Amino acid sequence: MTQVIADISVSLDGFVAGPDDGPDRHPLGIGGERLHRWLFDLESWQAQADGRERGEEREHPTSADIMGDFFARTGAAVIGRRMFDHGEKAWGDEPPFHMPVFVVTHRPLPPRRMSGGTDFEFVDEGVAAAVRRAIAAAGSKDVAVMGGGRVISSCLAAGLLDELRLHVVPMLLGGGVPLFARPTDPSIMLATARVELSSGVTHIVHRVIK
Amino acid sequence: MTQVIADISVSLDGFVAGPDDGPDRHPLGIGGERLHRWLFDLESWQAQADGRERGEEREHPTSADIMGDFFARTGAAVIGRRMFDHGEKAWGDEPPFHMPVFVVTHRPLPPRRMSGGTDFEFVDEGVAAAVRRAIAAAGSKDVAVMGGGRVISSCLAAGLLDELRLHVVPMLLGGGVPLFARPTDPSIMLATARVELSSGVTHIVHRVIK
Repeated sequence: MTQVIADISVSLDGFVAGPDDGPDRHPLGIGGERLHRWLFDLESWQAQADGRERGEEREHPTSADIMGDFFARTGAAVIGRRMFDHGEKAWGDEPPFHMPVFVVTHRPLPPRRMSGGTDFEFVDEGVAAAVRRAIAAAGSKDVAVMGGGRVISSCLAAGLLDELRLHVVPMLLGGGVPLFARPTDPSIMLATARVELSSGVTHIVHRVIK
Repeated sequence: MTQVIADISVSLDGFVAGPDDGPDRHPLGIGGERLHRWLFDLESWQAQADGRERGEEREHPTSADIMGDFFARTGAAVIGRRMFDHGEKAWGDEPPFHMPVFVVTHRPLPPRRMSGGTDFEFVDEGVAAAVRRAIAAAGSKDVAVMGGGRVISSCLAAGLLDELRLHVVPMLLGGGVPLFARPTDPSIMLATARVELSSGVTHIVHRVIK
Protein backbone atom coordinates (compact mmCIF):
# COMPACT_ATOMS: atom_id res chain seq x y z
CA MET A 1 0.00 0.00 0.00
CA THR A 2 1.26 3.45 -0.94
CA GLN A 3 2.87 5.34 1.92
CA VAL A 4 2.97 9.14 2.03
CA ILE A 5 6.42 10.12 3.22
CA ALA A 6 7.72 13.58 3.98
CA ASP A 7 11.46 13.86 3.64
CA ILE A 8 13.43 17.02 4.36
CA SER A 9 16.72 18.34 5.74
CA VAL A 10 16.46 20.60 8.76
CA SER A 11 18.97 22.65 10.73
CA LEU A 12 19.32 22.39 14.51
CA ASP A 13 17.41 25.65 14.83
CA GLY A 14 14.53 24.25 12.77
CA PHE A 15 14.95 25.77 9.32
CA VAL A 16 14.63 23.95 5.99
CA ALA A 17 16.08 26.84 3.94
CA GLY A 18 18.30 29.74 4.92
CA PRO A 19 17.51 33.45 4.93
CA ASP A 20 17.22 35.55 1.76
CA ASP A 21 16.15 32.65 -0.45
CA GLY A 22 15.17 33.39 -4.02
CA PRO A 23 15.63 31.76 -7.42
CA ASP A 24 18.20 34.27 -8.64
CA ARG A 25 20.34 34.61 -5.55
CA HIS A 26 20.16 31.73 -3.11
CA PRO A 27 17.71 29.01 -4.24
CA LEU A 28 18.14 27.32 -0.83
CA GLY A 29 18.74 30.52 1.16
CA ILE A 30 22.02 31.60 2.67
CA GLY A 31 23.62 28.49 4.17
CA GLY A 32 21.10 26.22 2.44
CA GLU A 33 23.72 24.59 0.24
CA ARG A 34 25.50 23.47 3.40
CA LEU A 35 22.22 22.08 4.77
CA HIS A 36 21.94 19.80 1.74
CA ARG A 37 25.64 19.07 1.23
CA TRP A 38 25.34 15.58 2.79
CA LEU A 39 22.68 14.76 0.16
CA PHE A 40 24.39 16.28 -2.87
CA ASP A 41 27.54 14.32 -2.00
CA LEU A 42 25.72 10.97 -2.25
CA GLU A 43 26.15 8.77 -5.29
CA SER A 44 22.53 7.64 -4.77
CA TRP A 45 21.36 11.27 -5.02
CA GLN A 46 23.51 11.95 -8.09
CA ALA A 47 22.15 8.79 -9.74
CA GLN A 48 18.58 9.85 -8.87
CA ALA A 49 19.21 13.38 -10.20
CA ASP A 50 20.75 12.04 -13.42
CA GLY A 51 18.05 9.39 -13.87
CA ARG A 52 20.56 6.53 -14.09
CA GLU A 53 21.25 3.31 -12.19
CA ARG A 54 22.81 3.83 -8.79
CA GLY A 55 26.51 2.98 -8.62
CA GLU A 56 28.50 1.81 -5.65
CA GLU A 57 28.40 4.17 -2.67
CA ARG A 58 31.91 4.36 -1.30
CA GLU A 59 31.74 7.36 1.00
CA HIS A 60 28.54 7.45 3.01
CA PRO A 61 26.96 4.00 3.16
CA THR A 62 24.49 4.86 5.94
CA SER A 63 23.02 7.92 4.21
CA ALA A 64 23.08 6.03 0.91
CA ASP A 65 21.12 3.19 2.44
CA ILE A 66 18.55 5.60 3.88
CA MET A 67 18.17 7.63 0.69
CA GLY A 68 18.62 4.84 -1.87
CA ASP A 69 15.67 2.94 -0.44
CA PHE A 70 13.63 6.13 -0.38
CA PHE A 71 14.34 6.99 -4.01
CA ALA A 72 13.64 3.42 -5.11
CA ARG A 73 10.28 3.39 -3.31
CA THR A 74 9.08 6.77 -4.56
CA GLY A 75 6.70 6.92 -7.54
CA ALA A 76 5.41 10.50 -7.34
CA ALA A 77 6.28 13.70 -5.48
CA VAL A 78 4.43 16.62 -3.91
CA ILE A 79 6.17 19.99 -3.54
CA GLY A 80 5.17 23.58 -2.77
CA ARG A 81 5.03 26.37 -5.30
CA ARG A 82 7.84 28.23 -3.56
CA MET A 83 10.12 25.22 -3.94
CA PHE A 84 9.13 24.95 -7.60
CA ASP A 85 9.77 28.64 -8.29
CA HIS A 86 13.11 28.59 -6.51
CA GLY A 87 14.27 25.33 -8.05
CA GLU A 88 12.98 25.67 -11.61
CA LYS A 89 15.98 27.50 -13.04
CA ALA A 90 18.56 25.37 -11.20
CA TRP A 91 16.82 22.13 -12.27
CA GLY A 92 16.95 23.06 -15.96
CA ASP A 93 15.36 21.00 -18.74
CA GLU A 94 15.83 17.68 -16.99
CA PRO A 95 14.79 18.12 -13.35
CA PRO A 96 16.12 15.61 -10.81
CA PHE A 97 12.74 14.00 -10.05
CA HIS A 98 12.18 11.65 -13.04
CA MET A 99 8.58 11.07 -11.92
CA PRO A 100 5.27 12.97 -11.75
CA VAL A 101 5.50 15.98 -9.42
CA PHE A 102 2.39 17.70 -8.06
CA VAL A 103 2.94 21.35 -7.17
CA VAL A 104 0.61 22.80 -4.52
CA THR A 105 -0.23 26.37 -5.54
CA HIS A 106 -2.86 29.11 -5.52
CA ARG A 107 -1.63 30.23 -8.96
CA PRO A 108 -1.81 27.16 -11.22
CA LEU A 109 0.21 26.89 -14.42
CA PRO A 110 -0.39 24.54 -17.35
CA PRO A 111 1.24 21.11 -16.87
CA ARG A 112 4.89 20.88 -17.90
CA ARG A 113 6.36 17.73 -19.36
CA MET A 114 10.12 17.84 -18.93
CA SER A 115 12.94 15.61 -20.18
CA GLY A 116 13.68 12.46 -18.23
CA GLY A 117 10.16 11.71 -17.05
CA THR A 118 9.48 14.66 -14.76
CA ASP A 119 5.92 15.91 -15.27
CA PHE A 120 4.90 18.95 -13.27
CA GLU A 121 1.20 19.31 -12.54
CA PHE A 122 -0.13 22.30 -10.63
CA VAL A 123 -2.84 21.64 -8.05
CA ASP A 124 -4.87 24.56 -6.69
CA GLU A 125 -7.28 22.53 -4.56
CA GLY A 126 -5.02 22.20 -1.50
CA VAL A 127 -2.49 19.69 -0.19
CA ALA A 128 -4.99 16.86 0.27
CA ALA A 129 -5.92 17.00 -3.43
CA ALA A 130 -2.25 17.09 -4.43
CA VAL A 131 -1.48 14.05 -2.26
CA ARG A 132 -4.53 12.21 -3.62
CA ARG A 133 -3.41 12.79 -7.19
CA ALA A 134 0.15 11.79 -6.34
CA ILE A 135 -1.09 8.54 -4.78
CA ALA A 136 -3.00 7.76 -7.98
CA ALA A 137 0.11 8.51 -10.06
CA ALA A 138 2.49 6.51 -7.84
CA GLY A 139 0.88 3.14 -8.58
CA SER A 140 2.33 0.59 -6.17
CA LYS A 141 5.09 2.96 -5.12
CA ASP A 142 5.16 5.62 -2.41
CA VAL A 143 4.52 9.36 -2.50
CA ALA A 144 7.27 11.72 -1.33
CA VAL A 145 6.38 15.10 0.10
CA MET A 146 9.67 16.87 -0.51
CA GLY A 147 9.02 20.36 0.83
CA GLY A 148 9.13 23.10 1.58
CA GLY A 149 8.32 23.38 5.24
CA ARG A 150 4.85 24.73 4.70
CA VAL A 151 3.66 21.85 2.53
CA ILE A 152 5.12 19.27 4.91
CA SER A 153 3.60 20.84 8.02
CA SER A 154 0.26 21.24 6.22
CA CYS A 155 0.31 17.55 5.25
CA LEU A 156 1.17 16.55 8.82
CA ALA A 157 -1.61 18.77 10.20
CA ALA A 158 -4.13 17.31 7.72
CA GLY A 159 -3.29 13.74 8.72
CA LEU A 160 -1.91 12.93 5.27
CA LEU A 161 1.53 11.63 6.29
CA ASP A 162 2.51 8.09 7.19
CA GLU A 163 6.15 8.91 7.78
CA LEU A 164 8.18 12.03 8.57
CA ARG A 165 11.85 11.63 7.75
CA LEU A 166 14.07 14.42 9.06
CA HIS A 167 17.73 14.78 8.16
CA VAL A 168 19.05 16.89 11.02
CA VAL A 169 22.22 18.78 10.17
CA PRO A 170 24.22 20.10 13.15
CA MET A 171 24.31 23.68 11.94
CA LEU A 172 22.44 26.88 12.70
CA LEU A 173 20.83 28.74 9.81
CA GLY A 174 19.86 31.68 12.02
CA GLY A 175 16.70 32.35 10.03
CA GLY A 176 14.95 31.43 6.80
CA VAL A 177 12.09 29.02 6.15
CA PRO A 178 11.06 27.12 9.30
CA LEU A 179 9.86 23.51 9.15
CA PHE A 180 7.03 24.43 11.51
CA ALA A 181 5.95 28.00 10.82
CA ARG A 182 2.46 27.88 12.21
CA PRO A 183 1.40 26.39 15.54
CA THR A 184 1.47 22.62 15.37
CA ASP A 185 -1.21 20.32 16.71
CA PRO A 186 -0.09 18.57 19.91
CA SER A 187 -2.62 15.79 19.35
CA ILE A 188 -0.58 14.49 16.40
CA MET A 189 1.30 11.46 17.68
CA LEU A 190 4.57 10.20 16.24
CA ALA A 191 6.96 7.40 17.06
CA THR A 192 10.62 7.32 16.14
CA ALA A 193 11.23 4.21 14.05
CA ARG A 194 14.88 4.57 13.07
CA VAL A 195 17.81 6.83 13.87
CA GLU A 196 21.15 6.77 12.06
CA LEU A 197 24.19 8.98 12.49
CA SER A 198 26.05 9.48 9.25
CA SER A 199 28.73 11.98 8.26
CA GLY A 200 27.36 15.46 8.82
CA VAL A 201 23.75 14.43 9.33
CA THR A 202 21.47 12.46 11.63
CA HIS A 203 18.61 10.66 9.92
CA ILE A 204 15.46 10.35 12.07
CA VAL A 205 12.50 8.41 10.69
CA HIS A 206 9.17 8.96 12.43
CA ARG A 207 5.97 7.03 11.87
CA VAL A 208 2.80 9.04 12.29
CA ILE A 209 0.45 7.16 14.62
CA LYS A 210 -3.07 7.07 13.22
CA MET B 1 39.37 19.48 32.23
CA THR B 2 35.89 20.70 33.09
CA GLN B 3 33.46 20.57 30.20
CA VAL B 4 30.44 22.85 29.96
CA ILE B 5 27.52 20.74 28.79
CA ALA B 6 24.03 21.89 27.93
CA ASP B 7 21.45 19.15 28.32
CA ILE B 8 17.77 19.58 27.51
CA SER B 9 14.70 17.83 26.15
CA VAL B 10 13.16 19.34 23.05
CA SER B 11 10.02 18.60 21.05
CA LEU B 12 10.08 18.05 17.29
CA ASP B 13 8.75 21.57 16.82
CA GLY B 14 11.61 23.00 18.88
CA PHE B 15 10.09 23.74 22.28
CA VAL B 16 11.64 22.97 25.67
CA ALA B 17 8.46 23.73 27.65
CA GLY B 18 4.82 23.78 26.59
CA PRO B 19 2.44 26.73 26.44
CA ASP B 20 0.94 28.38 29.52
CA ASP B 21 3.82 27.49 31.82
CA GLY B 22 3.83 28.83 35.33
CA PRO B 23 4.72 27.59 38.81
CA ASP B 24 1.12 27.22 39.98
CA ARG B 25 -0.44 25.67 36.93
CA HIS B 26 1.96 23.87 34.59
CA PRO B 27 5.60 24.13 35.76
CA LEU B 28 6.70 22.60 32.43
CA GLY B 29 3.89 24.08 30.34
CA ILE B 30 1.00 22.13 28.83
CA GLY B 31 2.45 18.89 27.47
CA GLY B 32 5.76 19.49 29.23
CA GLU B 33 5.32 16.50 31.52
CA ARG B 34 5.16 14.28 28.44
CA LEU B 35 8.32 15.93 27.08
CA HIS B 36 10.22 14.84 30.18
CA ARG B 37 8.46 11.50 30.77
CA TRP B 38 11.39 9.48 29.33
CA LEU B 39 13.65 11.12 31.94
CA PHE B 40 11.34 10.85 34.93
CA ASP B 41 10.92 7.14 34.19
CA LEU B 42 14.64 6.47 34.53
CA GLU B 43 16.03 4.86 37.66
CA SER B 44 19.18 6.95 37.11
CA TRP B 45 17.09 10.14 37.22
CA GLN B 46 15.17 9.00 40.28
CA ALA B 47 18.45 8.14 42.01
CA GLN B 48 19.88 11.56 41.07
CA ALA B 49 16.74 13.31 42.28
CA ASP B 50 16.74 11.39 45.54
CA GLY B 51 20.49 11.85 46.06
CA ARG B 52 21.14 8.13 46.40
CA GLU B 53 23.23 5.50 44.63
CA ARG B 54 21.92 4.49 41.26
CA GLY B 55 20.25 1.09 41.15
CA GLU B 56 19.95 -1.29 38.28
CA GLU B 57 18.24 0.15 35.23
CA ARG B 58 15.93 -2.52 33.90
CA GLU B 59 13.74 -0.61 31.50
CA HIS B 60 15.70 1.87 29.42
CA PRO B 61 19.39 0.92 29.37
CA THR B 62 20.32 3.31 26.54
CA SER B 63 18.83 6.41 28.14
CA ALA B 64 20.21 5.30 31.50
CA ASP B 65 23.69 5.00 30.03
CA ILE B 66 23.43 8.47 28.46
CA MET B 67 22.04 10.14 31.59
CA GLY B 68 23.88 8.11 34.24
CA ASP B 69 27.23 9.19 32.83
CA PHE B 70 26.05 12.76 32.64
CA PHE B 71 24.86 12.87 36.25
CA ALA B 72 28.05 11.21 37.46
CA ARG B 73 30.23 13.73 35.62
CA THR B 74 28.33 16.85 36.72
CA GLY B 75 29.67 18.90 39.67
CA ALA B 76 27.69 22.13 39.31
CA ALA B 77 24.69 23.40 37.35
CA VAL B 78 23.60 26.63 35.66
CA ILE B 79 19.90 27.37 35.19
CA GLY B 80 17.76 30.38 34.27
CA ARG B 81 15.62 32.32 36.69
CA ARG B 82 12.45 31.26 34.93
CA MET B 83 13.34 27.61 35.46
CA PHE B 84 14.10 28.32 39.12
CA ASP B 85 10.83 30.18 39.68
CA HIS B 86 8.79 27.49 37.96
CA GLY B 87 10.58 24.60 39.63
CA GLU B 88 11.06 25.92 43.15
CA LYS B 89 7.73 24.79 44.55
CA ALA B 90 7.80 21.39 42.83
CA TRP B 91 11.38 20.72 44.00
CA GLY B 92 10.51 21.34 47.65
CA ASP B 93 13.05 21.38 50.49
CA GLU B 94 15.36 18.86 48.87
CA PRO B 95 15.74 19.83 45.19
CA PRO B 96 16.92 17.12 42.78
CA PHE B 97 20.29 18.73 42.00
CA HIS B 98 22.42 17.79 45.06
CA MET B 99 25.16 20.18 43.91
CA PRO B 100 25.78 23.95 43.63
CA VAL B 101 23.32 25.58 41.20
CA PHE B 102 23.98 29.03 39.74
CA VAL B 103 20.80 30.86 38.72
CA VAL B 104 21.17 33.50 35.99
CA THR B 105 18.91 36.42 36.86
CA HIS B 106 18.45 40.18 36.71
CA ARG B 107 16.74 40.05 40.13
CA PRO B 108 19.20 38.35 42.48
CA LEU B 109 18.09 36.73 45.73
CA PRO B 110 20.24 35.81 48.75
CA PRO B 111 21.88 32.37 48.42
CA ARG B 112 19.75 29.41 49.50
CA ARG B 113 21.25 26.33 51.09
CA MET B 114 18.80 23.46 50.71
CA SER B 115 18.73 19.91 52.08
CA GLY B 116 20.76 17.31 50.26
CA GLY B 117 23.58 19.53 49.04
CA THR B 118 21.75 21.83 46.65
CA ASP B 119 23.02 25.40 47.06
CA PHE B 120 21.32 28.03 44.93
CA GLU B 121 23.40 31.12 44.14
CA PHE B 122 21.94 33.96 42.10
CA VAL B 123 24.19 35.58 39.52
CA ASP B 124 23.23 38.94 38.01
CA GLU B 125 26.34 39.47 35.92
CA GLY B 126 25.27 37.40 32.91
CA VAL B 127 25.62 33.81 31.73
CA ALA B 128 29.42 33.96 31.33
CA ALA B 129 29.83 34.91 34.99
CA ALA B 130 27.43 32.15 36.05
CA VAL B 131 29.34 29.55 34.01
CA ARG B 132 32.67 30.83 35.38
CA ARG B 133 31.45 30.43 38.95
CA ALA B 134 30.01 27.00 38.18
CA ILE B 135 33.36 25.88 36.72
CA ALA B 136 35.11 26.99 39.92
CA ALA B 137 32.54 25.11 42.02
CA ALA B 138 32.63 21.93 39.91
CA GLY B 139 36.26 21.09 40.74
CA SER B 140 37.35 18.27 38.46
CA LYS B 141 33.80 17.56 37.36
CA ASP B 142 31.72 19.10 34.55
CA VAL B 143 29.21 21.95 34.50
CA ALA B 144 25.66 21.25 33.29
CA VAL B 145 23.62 24.02 31.74
CA MET B 146 20.17 22.61 32.32
CA GLY B 147 17.90 25.25 30.83
CA GLY B 148 15.72 26.88 30.02
CA GLY B 149 16.08 27.55 26.32
CA ARG B 150 17.20 31.13 26.77
CA VAL B 151 20.14 30.30 29.04
CA ILE B 152 21.26 27.46 26.77
CA SER B 153 21.06 29.52 23.57
CA SER B 154 22.81 32.42 25.31
CA CYS B 155 25.63 30.10 26.41
CA LEU B 156 25.92 28.70 22.89
CA ALA B 157 25.97 32.20 21.38
CA ALA B 158 28.63 33.32 23.87
CA GLY B 159 30.90 30.40 23.01
CA LEU B 160 30.61 28.94 26.51
CA LEU B 161 29.47 25.41 25.59
CA ASP B 162 31.63 22.40 24.84
CA GLU B 163 28.70 20.06 24.28
CA LEU B 164 25.02 20.40 23.41
CA ARG B 165 23.00 17.32 24.31
CA LEU B 166 19.48 17.31 22.92
CA HIS B 167 16.89 14.73 23.87
CA VAL B 168 14.46 14.92 20.96
CA VAL B 169 10.97 13.68 21.81
CA PRO B 170 8.74 12.82 18.82
CA MET B 171 5.89 15.05 19.91
CA LEU B 172 4.58 18.50 18.99
CA LEU B 173 4.10 21.02 21.79
CA GLY B 174 2.47 23.55 19.47
CA GLY B 175 3.91 26.51 21.38
CA GLY B 176 5.67 27.39 24.60
CA VAL B 177 9.32 28.12 25.29
CA PRO B 178 11.50 27.62 22.19
CA LEU B 179 15.05 26.29 22.45
CA PHE B 180 16.16 28.98 20.03
CA ALA B 181 14.06 32.10 20.56
CA ARG B 182 16.35 34.69 19.09
CA PRO B 183 18.25 34.46 15.81
CA THR B 184 21.13 32.05 16.13
CA ASP B 185 24.64 32.64 14.83
CA PRO B 186 25.34 30.54 11.72
CA SER B 187 29.09 30.80 12.32
CA ILE B 188 28.76 28.48 15.34
CA MET B 189 29.95 25.07 14.20
CA LEU B 190 28.85 21.78 15.75
CA ALA B 191 29.54 18.15 15.07
CA THR B 192 27.29 15.28 16.05
CA ALA B 193 29.28 12.93 18.26
CA ARG B 194 26.69 10.35 19.27
CA VAL B 195 23.11 9.45 18.46
CA GLU B 196 21.03 6.89 20.31
CA LEU B 197 17.41 5.89 19.85
CA SER B 198 15.78 4.88 23.11
CA SER B 199 12.14 4.41 24.04
CA GLY B 200 10.31 7.64 23.34
CA VAL B 201 13.39 9.78 22.82
CA THR B 202 16.39 10.22 20.54
CA HIS B 203 19.57 11.39 22.26
CA ILE B 204 21.82 13.55 20.09
CA VAL B 205 25.16 14.68 21.50
CA HIS B 206 26.86 17.55 19.67
CA ARG B 207 30.36 18.87 20.24
CA VAL B 208 30.80 22.58 19.70
CA ILE B 209 33.77 23.15 17.40
CA LYS B 210 36.04 25.91 18.74
